[in-house]
Amino acid sequence: MREGKGKEYLSKYVAERKKCTFKTEELINVLDGGPHKTKDRKFREKYFLEDPELQSKVPLEYLSHKEKYEEAVRKACLLFKKVQQLQNEGRGGMDNFREVLGGQLGSAILGDGNPLTLHYVMFIPTIMGQGNFEQQAEWIQKAWECSIIGTYAQTELGHGTFIRGLETRAVYDSKTEEFVLNSPSLTAYKWWPGGLGHSANYAVVVAQLYTKGQCHGIHPFIVQLRDEETHVPLPGIKIGEIGCKLGMNSTNNGYLGFENVRIPRTNMLMKNNKVLPDGTYQSSPSSKLTYGTMIFVRVVLVQDAATYLKKSVTIATRYSAVRRQCQIKAEEPETQILNYVTQQHKIFPNIATCFAFQYAANWLWDIYNEVNSQLETGQLDNLPELHATACVLKAVSTADAAVGVEICRLACGGHGYMTSSNLPSIYGLVTAMCTYEGENTVLLLQTARFLVKMWQSKKNLTNLPTLKYLETALHKTKPFEKSVEWIISALQTTAARKIELANNHINDRIKRGQSSEVAWNNTSIELVEMADIHGRIFIVDIFHQSIRKLQVSPELEIVLNQLDQLYAVSQALKLTGHLLRFTDLTASNIETLQSWLEELLAALRPNAVGLVDSFDFRDEVLASALGAFDGNVYERLFSAAQKSPLNAEPVNKSFQHYLKPFLKSSL
Amino acid sequence: MREGKGKEYLSKYVAERKKCTFKTEELINVLDGGPHKTKDRKFREKYFLEDPELQSKVPLEYLSHKEKYEEAVRKACLLFKKVQQLQNEGRGGMDNFREVLGGQLGSAILGDGNPLTLHYVMFIPTIMGQGNFEQQAEWIQKAWECSIIGTYAQTELGHGTFIRGLETRAVYDSKTEEFVLNSPSLTAYKWWPGGLGHSANYAVVVAQLYTKGQCHGIHPFIVQLRDEETHVPLPGIKIGEIGCKLGMNSTNNGYLGFENVRIPRTNMLMKNNKVLPDGTYQSSPSSKLTYGTMIFVRVVLVQDAATYLKKSVTIATRYSAVRRQCQIKAEEPETQILNYVTQQHKIFPNIATCFAFQYAANWLWDIYNEVNSQLETGQLDNLPELHATACVLKAVSTADAAVGVEICRLACGGHGYMTSSNLPSIYGLVTAMCTYEGENTVLLLQTARFLVKMWQSKKNLTNLPTLKYLETALHKTKPFEKSVEWIISALQTTAARKIELANNHINDRIKRGQSSEVAWNNTSIELVEMADIHGRIFIVDIFHQSIRKLQVSPELEIVLNQLDQLYAVSQALKLTGHLLRFTDLTASNIETLQSWLEELLAALRPNAVGLVDSFDFRDEVLASALGAFDGNVYERLFSAAQKSPLNAEPVNKSFQHYLKPFLKSSL
Repeated sequence: MREGKGKEYLSKYVAERKKCTFKTEELINVLDGGPHKTKDRKFREKYFLEDPELQSKVPLEYLSHKEKYEEAVRKACLLFKKVQQLQNEGRGGMDNFREVLGGQLGSAILGDGNPLTLHYVMFIPTIMGQGNFEQQAEWIQKAWECSIIGTYAQTELGHGTFIRGLETRAVYDSKTEEFVLNSPSLTAYKWWPGGLGHSANYAVVVAQLYTKGQCHGIHPFIVQLRDEETHVPLPGIKIGEIGCKLGMNSTNNGYLGFENVRIPRTNMLMKNNKVLPDGTYQSSPSSKLTYGTMIFVRVVLVQDAATYLKKSVTIATRYSAVRRQCQIKAEEPETQILNYVTQQHKIFPNIATCFAFQYAANWLWDIYNEVNSQLETGQLDNLPELHATACVLKAVSTADAAVGVEICRLACGGHGYMTSSNLPSIYGLVTAMCTYEGENTVLLLQTARFLVKMWQSKKNLTNLPTLKYLETALHKTKPFEKSVEWIISALQTTAARKIELANNHINDRIKRGQSSEVAWNNTSIELVEMADIHGRIFIVDIFHQSIRKLQVSPELEIVLNQLDQLYAVSQALKLTGHLLRFTDLTASNIETLQSWLEELLAALRPNAVGLVDSFDFRDEVLASALGAFDGNVYERLFSAAQKSPLNAEPVNKSFQHYLKPFLKSSL
Repeated sequence: MREGKGKEYLSKYVAERKKCTFKTEELINVLDGGPHKTKDRKFREKYFLEDPELQSKVPLEYLSHKEKYEEAVRKACLLFKKVQQLQNEGRGGMDNFREVLGGQLGSAILGDGNPLTLHYVMFIPTIMGQGNFEQQAEWIQKAWECSIIGTYAQTELGHGTFIRGLETRAVYDSKTEEFVLNSPSLTAYKWWPGGLGHSANYAVVVAQLYTKGQCHGIHPFIVQLRDEETHVPLPGIKIGEIGCKLGMNSTNNGYLGFENVRIPRTNMLMKNNKVLPDGTYQSSPSSKLTYGTMIFVRVVLVQDAATYLKKSVTIATRYSAVRRQCQIKAEEPETQILNYVTQQHKIFPNIATCFAFQYAANWLWDIYNEVNSQLETGQLDNLPELHATACVLKAVSTADAAVGVEICRLACGGHGYMTSSNLPSIYGLVTAMCTYEGENTVLLLQTARFLVKMWQSKKNLTNLPTLKYLETALHKTKPFEKSVEWIISALQTTAARKIELANNHINDRIKRGQSSEVAWNNTSIELVEMADIHGRIFIVDIFHQSIRKLQVSPELEIVLNQLDQLYAVSQALKLTGHLLRFTDLTASNIETLQSWLEELLAALRPNAVGLVDSFDFRDEVLASALGAFDGNVYERLFSAAQKSPLNAEPVNKSFQHYLKPFLKSSL
C-alpha cells in the first residue's frame, strides 16, 4: 500500500525539461517572429502584469456580477492610462492599444472582458472609416484622448446576421435638420454591444435611414447616450445591460432603445453616403470598401483561436506531467498521466494544431494586407477570395479551438472543472468566437457559395491561389504514401469531389422543380462539410509550407516536422470516411496512418513540456493552478481555495439561520 | 426595407403546434411510463415548484459565490422539510428523496447544486450497505431524521480514479480502542465531496487501515467533523470549501485534512471487514457486493444525460421556431431558422438521441435490478457484463449529451450564450458527468478490457446478451439496405473487426517484446474507439427493439419510427470511415444514407415542436427565456435583463470613482 508521497510528484516533472531535445529559447523567438519581438513582448508583459494596482484583491469568480463590473471599470481605466503613458514615451501606437485592450494581454489583466474595448476596436475605426473629413476632425481627437467613450451598436434583440432586417429608424426632419431615432418595437432594441450598458456615453448606431418618405437602408449615426458630466441617460434613451453570460461578464454588454431621440444631421457618418440639409439622399457606390474591417477582425480571431488553444494545451500538458495515476505495470509507482497514450492523443494533436493555426493566421494576415493595399488602388478582384478564405478559416479555427480547449479541460479530470485551473474561463471566451463576428455555419455557407460559384463559372482558377487545386484535384490520384504531401493531395481530391457532388445535387433538385434557393437549402449539410474540408486543406498546406521556409537548427526542424506530420495525420484519420469514399485510400493504408500517428505521439512525448514552454506564457497570463511553470499544482490548488470568502469564517451564518433550526426540528 | 415587425414573430410559432401529426399527451404518457406516472410527476412538480418560498428573489447568477451558498442552504433545508412532510403524509419513500434531492426536480429548484444531496445519495446508502446491524441501528435513524448531516469523503487532492493510492491513514490504537486519522501530506487531503465545506457535520471517510503495524487497504469510517451545537470544526479537523467551479457552485464541495483525529473503534463500518478490540483484522471476501452502488449511480447518469439533452433540444427547438433570420427566397419575409436544413441537422438528431438514451437507460435499469437480485442469492456471473455495459453506456451517453447540449446552445446564436437561456448552466452540469463517477476514457478502457478478455477466452458468448453478436458478426456480411437492421448489423461487424484488430495489435506488440501492460497502453487509442462503437450498437439496437414493443397509436408509431431511423442513420454517417473499412458499404450507399437523413429531417420538421412539448418540462424546470412554452422569447430576454442589479441604478458608482476622473484627466 503506497502513501505519504508528499512532494515527490514534482521530481519527475522537473526532469521533463531535461528531456527536451531542442532549445525552447529558439522556438520562442521563432513563434514571436524574431528575438527583438520576444524582447518587446516581454517588456510589455512586465510593464503591465507587474503593476500591483492591476491585480485584484479577491479572485473575480467570488464577486457578485455588479462587483465584477466595478472592478473591471477600475482596471480598464488604469490600463488605458498606462497605455497612454507608453504612448507619450513614444513606445508604440495603435498596435499597443490593440494588443493591450483587445488582445491577450488585456484579456489576462481584465480576466473576463473589458467594458471599454469597443471604444478602440469599433468606435474609433468606424468613424475613421466612415466619417468624412469634418466628422473625423470633430470626433477622432475627443475619442482618441478619451474625453468621450464610445461603442458600436448594430445588432438588435431580434436581428443579428441579417443586418438588412434591422428595425431601428433614423427619420430625417428637414425642418430642424435633425434625424429622429426610434425603436419601433422591442425586437428593434440594440442588444449585445460591449460597454453599452453603463460604460459608454456615445455610440455609433446603425439604423434604417428614412428621408423624404423613402427608406435608403442601414447607415451609421453618432449618438450621444449619456450626459458627459453626470452620466445620466439622455431623454428618450432607454439603456441598461443585458445580464449574465457564459463568459465575458465584465464586458458590460448592453441594450438600447430610442424614443424620439433627435441628433444633428451632421451626426450621420457621411464619407460614402450623404443626406443634404433639404433631405436629398446622395449615395456612393464604394460599399465594398467597408468589407475590410470585417475581414480584419476575422484575421485576428484566427490568431486568438490559436492563443486560447495554446493556453489550454500548456495547462493540460504541465498538469499531465505532474499528475500521477495508476500503474502501467503493477508494483511500479503511479505513473505520470502524460505517459498514457490516450492522454497523449488528447493533447499532442492539439499542440500541433496551435502551430498550424498560428501559421494560417500569419499567412492570412499577409494576404489581408496585400489585398487591402490593392483596395486602396481601387483593385477589388481578390476581395471575394480573401473574404471566402477568412470566413472558412475563422469558422474552422474557432470551432476546432473550442473543441480542443474542452478536450484539454476534460483531460485534467476533476481539477480541470475548477475555476482555479482557468480552463472553464478560457472555454467561455473561445466558444463565444464560434458565434460572434459571423456565426460559423453562416460563414461556412458563404465560403460554400463562393466555391460553388467558381465551380459553376468554370472560370480560370489558376489566378486564385486558394482554388488552383480544383483544376487538377478531381482526376489526379496520387498513390498512397506516408507523407504530408499525400494527405494534402488526398484532401484536395476529396474537396473537389465534394464540390462536384454538392453541385450535382443542387442541379438535380432544380431539375426536380425546386427553386435554386430551396435546392441550396436542401443541399446545405453537404455544402457545410465541403467548405469545412476546403478550409482544412488550407491549414495543413500552409503549415507544411511555412515551416519549410523557416531557418532553424536541425534539432528544432525535426520537432517542427513531427508537428506538421501529426497535424496532417490527425486530420486524415478524422476524415477517413471521406478519404475512403473519394480517394484511393485502402483499409490497410489506414493501419499505416494509425501507426504513423502512434509513432509521432511517442516521438513527441519527451518534448511535450518543452513545446508548451515555448509558447512562453507568464504564470499571470495562464492564471492556472494546474499550468504554472513550477508544476506546484497541489499547493496552488490549495492556496486558491483559501481565497474563497466562504473560507474566511469557520462557520457560515447559514448554519444559525437555516441549518441548525432544521437539524433541531428533525429530532 | 422591412421593419417594425412587433410581435408578428409569434404568429408562426403558435401555428407550429397545429402542424403536429400526433397527440403530445399520448407521447408524454409513453415517456413517463403510463398516465398515472404522469399524474404523480405533475403533482410533485406542482407541490415543489409552486411554493413561493422556493423561489429566489434575485437570479443566482447575480449573487456572489458566498451568497449563492447561503441561498442554497436556505432552499435545501426547505426542500428537505417539504419532502419529510410528503413522507409523513404517506406519499412515497426513498424515491421521493432521490427525485427531489438528487434528481432533476431538485436541480431545477436549487439551480446550481444542493449542498445536502450527498447526505441521502451517499452517506445513508453507505452506512446501510457497509455498516453492521449495530451501526445501522445507531446511525441510520439519526441520519434519516436529519439530526445529523453527512457526506462521503473518498477522493483526495492527489488521488481520484486509483483508489488504492489514497493516502489518508486510520491507525488503530488498541490501548484506547480508537483509530487515529492523519493526512500525511497535502495530496492526502480529501477534496471534492459535496457539502463537505461548510454544510455537513459528519462524513464517511475512506482511509488506509493500519492495525498491528500492517496496512489492510482502504476502509470506510464514520467521522464527526463539526460540533453539533456550534458547527465549529472539531480539533484536528482542517476543513473548508475548494472554491469556484465551471458549475455546481452551490454544492459546497470541500476539502478535509486530519491531524491526530481519534474516533472509536466502532466507527469503522464493519459489515464486511472487522477490527477486533485487540487490533486483530478479520476480512470478508464479498467485496464484489459493493459494486452494486457504483453501477446504480451510472445507470442514473444515463437517465440524467437524456434529461439534460431533452432540456437543451426543447430550448433550441422552440427558439428556432420563433427566431427568424434571412430569407430563403428574396422578397419573402424572414424565415423561422428551424426551416434551415443545417439547423434541423443540429437539433433533430439530438431529439432522436434523447429517446435513444431514455430507452437505453430504461433497459439498463431493468438489467441492473435483475443482476442485483441475482447478487442477493450469491450469483455473481452476470456482474462483469453488467459492469462493462454500465461503463460504456455512461461514457457514450454523457459524452454525446455534452456535445449535443453545446450544439443546441450554439444553434441559439448569441442568445444561447446568455445565462437567461439556461443553456450555459445545463452545459456546466452535463459536462461534469463526463468526469465524475468514472472518467469516460477510464470507463471505455474498462469495457475494452472486458471485450478483449472475452474475445481472447473464446468463451461461449451466447449467454452474454451484449456480446452474442460477436459470434457471427465477424463473417456475416448483410448486403446493404436502407434499414435500421442493416445499420445495426454493420456496426456489429465493425465492432467485431475492431476487437479482432486491436487484439492482433496487442499480440504483435507483445511478440515484438513489449510487456502486456505496455502493449495495452500502446494500443489504447484503438481500444477506446472499439469500446465506444460497442456501446453505440447497443443504444441503436435497444432503441429499435424498445419502440417495437410499445403499444401506441398509428400516428405516434410513424414518428417514433422516424426517430429510430434518424438516430441510426446519424450514427452510421458519423462512422462511415469505419463502415467503409470494415463492411461492404460502398461510396454510393453513402449517398443513399445521406438522402435518407435529409428525408427524415424534412419528415420530422412539422413535429419538431410537438416532440419537445412531449418532454413536458414546466417553464420553471427549463428556466429559459428562449425555451418557455409560450415562445415569448424577446419579452422574456428583456425582462430577465431587468433583474440585473446593475440595472437598478441608471448610473453605477464606478462612473464617479473611476470613469469620470479618467475622462476628465484625458482632456
